[in-house]
Amino acid sequence: MSSSLSFKNILVVGLGLIGGSILQSLKSRSYQGNTYGIDSNLLAIDKANELGLIENKDKNIKGDLQNLLIIFSVPTLSITKAINDLNLQTEDVLYTDTCSVKSSVLEDIKKRKPEFFSKFILSHPIAGSEQSGLSAASSTLFDKRLTIVSPHEKNIEEDISRVEEFWRNLGSLTKRLPANSHDDLFAKTSHLPHVISFALMDSIFKDLNDETFLYSGGSLEDYTRIASSDPVMWKDIMIANEKPIIESIAHFKESLEMLAELIQKKDPVELTNFFTAIKTSRDQLLTEEK
Amino acid sequence: MSSSLSFKNILVVGLGLIGGSILQSLKSRSYQGNTYGIDSNLLAIDKANELGLIENKDKNIKGDLQNLLIIFSVPTLSITKAINDLNLQTEDVLYTDTCSVKSSVLEDIKKRKPEFFSKFILSHPIAGSEQSGLSAASSTLFDKRLTIVSPHEKNIEEDISRVEEFWRNLGSLTKRLPANSHDDLFAKTSHLPHVISFALMDSIFKDLNDETFLYSGGSLEDYTRIASSDPVMWKDIMIANEKPIIESIAHFKESLEMLAELIQKKDPVELTNFFTAIKTSRDQLLTEEK
Repeated sequence: MSSSLSFKNILVVGLGLIGGSILQSLKSRSYQGNTYGIDSNLLAIDKANELGLIENKDKNIKGDLQNLLIIFSVPTLSITKAINDLNLQTEDVLYTDTCSVKSSVLEDIKKRKPEFFSKFILSHPIAGSEQSGLSAASSTLFDKRLTIVSPHEKNIEEDISRVEEFWRNLGSLTKRLPANSHDDLFAKTSHLPHVISFALMDSIFKDLNDETFLYSGGSLEDYTRIASSDPVMWKDIMIANEKPIIESIAHFKESLEMLAELIQKKDPVELTNFFTAIKTSRDQLLTEEK
Repeated sequence: MSSSLSFKNILVVGLGLIGGSILQSLKSRSYQGNTYGIDSNLLAIDKANELGLIENKDKNIKGDLQNLLIIFSVPTLSITKAINDLNLQTEDVLYTDTCSVKSSVLEDIKKRKPEFFSKFILSHPIAGSEQSGLSAASSTLFDKRLTIVSPHEKNIEEDISRVEEFWRNLGSLTKRLPANSHDDLFAKTSHLPHVISFALMDSIFKDLNDETFLYSGGSLEDYTRIASSDPVMWKDIMIANEKPIIESIAHFKESLEMLAELIQKKDPVELTNFFTAIKTSRDQLLTEEK
């Protein structure tokens, strides 16, 4: 790995599930460079140091920081403060992040110095868990998952490739997508399912209270798993990507109301046709994918 | 198993995923009695016979059929025809079914002869897959899953216990719940999630077409898995349990609209509180369950 991973130093800002998993993954792959980590919670730095994931024992990072990659792995709306708080004397550096919304991060970095902006390559590893925090971190979190890289107009190809290579070295696949396309797409395919899960849990709790899972036999647990996701992370995503999310909720409601009408009509042919069309498209797309 | 399973003969009507899995499970547990199976599709009978799951080669079932359990494992709305078509000369028999809606089956059997009605114990194994048909059947489908048994006023305790024991012998847990409670509950915990999955797929397909799964990295596939469920089975469930399902959709829409308002307000405190309350309740209930 040391030969293909071109950074001599890696600093992770934010030692949660994703940041911790990056460090775990580097460790399990015997990364030969130096790893550092900071977090607003000093206990997380202690813990990461104890686990042998980072060299530093507190917020002070010393040493030769040439050829450095800095990864901001904080909730989407915390990135402004995380960048502001960074106090490092180094010029030989690339920046990336792991935020789930890209336009809001792009907006922030655009306002900063051109030499910072041009060296910041937006990333989003599509990996996670309803677990959060360093203790849930895993060296295999990115294995065969996808990382979206969202280059902007001031990035150069060499830097973009180095960041993509970094993710591929952690086991991830990579694809490129502009920030606004990313946000529109993930509003539908990720943020909307989370909205639905939270709302579904809310409505079932109101009806069934303590009996919610009593008779479900496991499938409701599976289906609502993402409603246990990190509240702060998802509060940030909802705020940062509000417009595309509200639009995707509106589209979903149209489909829901249309299906509710079909159910009320109790028309066996229309219902069968509707379910068959969905199943056929879904199965076909997933077969083609493989 | 032969000692604890008190039926000498078992007939499965409907050789799909559930019926096939009952037979696979009996076979893997070396059931010592005789097993029979019929299906409106003669090829399914052929196939089940070839696999050594049933003794009969066609719809004609011969032999000593004393001490028989007949399991109707057909889509909910097909049970009337399945019962009508049954043409067996035996009196020493108990009946059960595997339908996902219980009130509509109860309504049907109530209209029949008292000696038939009293010997029919309603069951619903909470196990399934987005796969359907005999080829998807599995001997472990019921392992540690739950089967709801819905006794009615004319059942006797001895018969109910024998049917419960049958399910426990296939690896399932059992719980009792009256038919109408079952239908209200599963409208919320199972039928509603399916409605949501179908509607979500529909709305995403309309927006993204062939690109639906292109960037999802696996989680959307997981989340919409149940939208590939058997169309005929789910058409029947929607029609048979229409009222409770429409009511559960209405409750869910209230929660969805409330959350959409919170997102539009972009109030970080209210959003965090809402997500935290959901996560806390969910995690707590699932911890207590274990």
